[in-house]
Amino acid sequence: MDISEIGKFALLDRLNAGFEARQQTSLKTFDDAAVIAASNRPKQVCSVILLEGIHFNLVYMPLKHLGCKAVTHAVSKIAAMNALPRQILVSLGISSRFSVADVESFYEGIRAACLMYELELVENNLVASMTGMTISVTAVGEASEESLCYKSGAKVNDLVCISGNLGAAYMGLQVLERERRIFESSHTQPKLEGYDYVLQKQLHPQARLDILKIFEDNEIKPASMTAIVDGLASDMLHICKQSDVGARIYLEKIPISSETFAVCEEMNFDAVTAALNGGDDFELLFTVPVSLHEAIKGVPEFEIIGYTCDNSQGACLVTPEGNELKIKAQGWTSISG
Amino acid sequence: MDISEIGKFALLDRLNAGFEARQQTSLKTFDDAAVIAASNRPKQVCSVILLEGIHFNLVYMPLKHLGCKAVTHAVSKIAAMNALPRQILVSLGISSRFSVADVESFYEGIRAACLMYELELVENNLVASMTGMTISVTAVGEASEESLCYKSGAKVNDLVCISGNLGAAYMGLQVLERERRIFESSHTQPKLEGYDYVLQKQLHPQARLDILKIFEDNEIKPASMTAIVDGLASDMLHICKQSDVGARIYLEKIPISSETFAVCEEMNFDAVTAALNGGDDFELLFTVPVSLHEAIKGVPEFEIIGYTCDNSQGACLVTPEGNELKIKAQGWTSISG
Repeated sequence: MDISEIGKFALLDRLNAGFEARQQTSLKTFDDAAVIAASNRPKQVCSVILLEGIHFNLVYMPLKHLGCKAVTHAVSKIAAMNALPRQILVSLGISSRFSVADVESFYEGIRAACLMYELELVENNLVASMTGMTISVTAVGEASEESLCYKSGAKVNDLVCISGNLGAAYMGLQVLERERRIFESSHTQPKLEGYDYVLQKQLHPQARLDILKIFEDNEIKPASMTAIVDGLASDMLHICKQSDVGARIYLEKIPISSETFAVCEEMNFDAVTAALNGGDDFELLFTVPVSLHEAIKGVPEFEIIGYTCDNSQGACLVTPEGNELKIKAQGWTSISG
Repeated sequence: MDISEIGKFALLDRLNAGFEARQQTSLKTFDDAAVIAASNRPKQVCSVILLEGIHFNLVYMPLKHLGCKAVTHAVSKIAAMNALPRQILVSLGISSRFSVADVESFYEGIRAACLMYELELVENNLVASMTGMTISVTAVGEASEESLCYKSGAKVNDLVCISGNLGAAYMGLQVLERERRIFESSHTQPKLEGYDYVLQKQLHPQARLDILKIFEDNEIKPASMTAIVDGLASDMLHICKQSDVGARIYLEKIPISSETFAVCEEMNFDAVTAALNGGDDFELLFTVPVSLHEAIKGVPEFEIIGYTCDNSQGACLVTPEGNELKIKAQGWTSISG
């Protein structure tokens, strides 16, 4: 069915209908603006924008997964404040090549994410696009003032820690890209067996809301925190810059899964590069005072990868041989269009 | 200068620097998410997405005006809740054809809007785009619970009212489009003299925050309200649907400025159609109980254009001859891409 047949507002009604069961608050939603719960707890708002051809390729990204991943992206940024996401607002730009079923698939993913993260969709908007699909997700979170964590809170001699492992999402993307190229040149069916872990991390990543519970249970309050969205290198530099500290990160301490290593070996790709510059991991990067060393060591999900130091010492990777390499963020890649 | 020369984060720093003077709260901003002021007043969040070729054409829309207009769009939706906008979050998708100066021009407009509407920019994001320019603006507003107005609050026999006048922005667009076509076919310089009013409304519209003050001064609390973004027809139907009422709108009562009429006559365009279906007016459409008739009549900015009726009577335009025409929203226009 064409969207022109059903019309924008009827389609929005259809899309919104699936969310009404979750409208548990008495607050008004789907109006000109969403009213956020009145309370004395601070609210956090963040907004992400995802563009076709840049952040996703619909050749191998199912629309349902894409809807879920877009929410995961925004929710991860709320989690990085040590806050719980509560509401999301979605805007979707689409052209005539998308059918109603396509849009509904995308919103199935949004709905799945709302269930998984216990969110309410409070605003929803569709616009026509002349070019690719455009996704905007705004997330609103809630936390007590004391529990909030900022990028700017790191002190000299904090431990630098990470949840989970890095580089898997990036290597999943490399596998998908390789198979796409093979398919386009020879029409050979993609071989995706045996890559479950890295593909899952690329196509269906999850925001680490579970880590917030672990912090609480173990009485850990990070001094600073951010979500790893652009890659460890960029995101570590953000903490260093905003906290006015340097850092030493031990290369061999960066957590990389055996599955990621195996794919890197097969594709002749440096695993540390994938971990440093690969995006979309949505893990949490945080620092804690040394006094929390024991508490961190007791949590299997956490890895201590280095420490912060005086700003004058800069931010460096330390190789197993003891050499120091300056951490560089990936540059801006301009794209013609 | 190319953005690749300066890099994404350095450019963001430059852009953000201009806003720091306005960071008067002690709250943290420019982090993973923006922390919204702790208070017991409800917060409103809305998000708009604007796409090149759909919502704006850079051939005649200066980037500075565009930045300001994008904020006006989001702010108007907060105003339509009878709430004051306080913070905005901006994401901008751009390709390599935009220079640093271009992006700075756009943000000059954002800054101008922040000054005009007394807003803080609390988050800011740039992404690469393979296609056109993509703008996402999220606005957060504040109001007391009692003062909030919803689309769903209209009752049968309310007066339907409007601020300002309609159709000017749309006719401004028609003038710009005509001159663009002439320029492209014959390289004749655009003639824009004498169209100041409609061009101003198209290129540099203002959100009607002044109306909120008028409501307060005159002790007027609208029963329902929305911003006219898609045109009077669509937005009136939203109020009818969400309030479960019908409406009678008198064609000759729809406020249209003499300048708009003159352009319509010159271009052989029906002024009422421009008012009904032209977007981007950002005026406020609201209903009030009949008891406020005198209060509304005393305000020159307001025009009473009709009344609400039982839902079973539908939503109709009433011609000067007394004929009734069903109000129809413009359909979804799918665009190839």
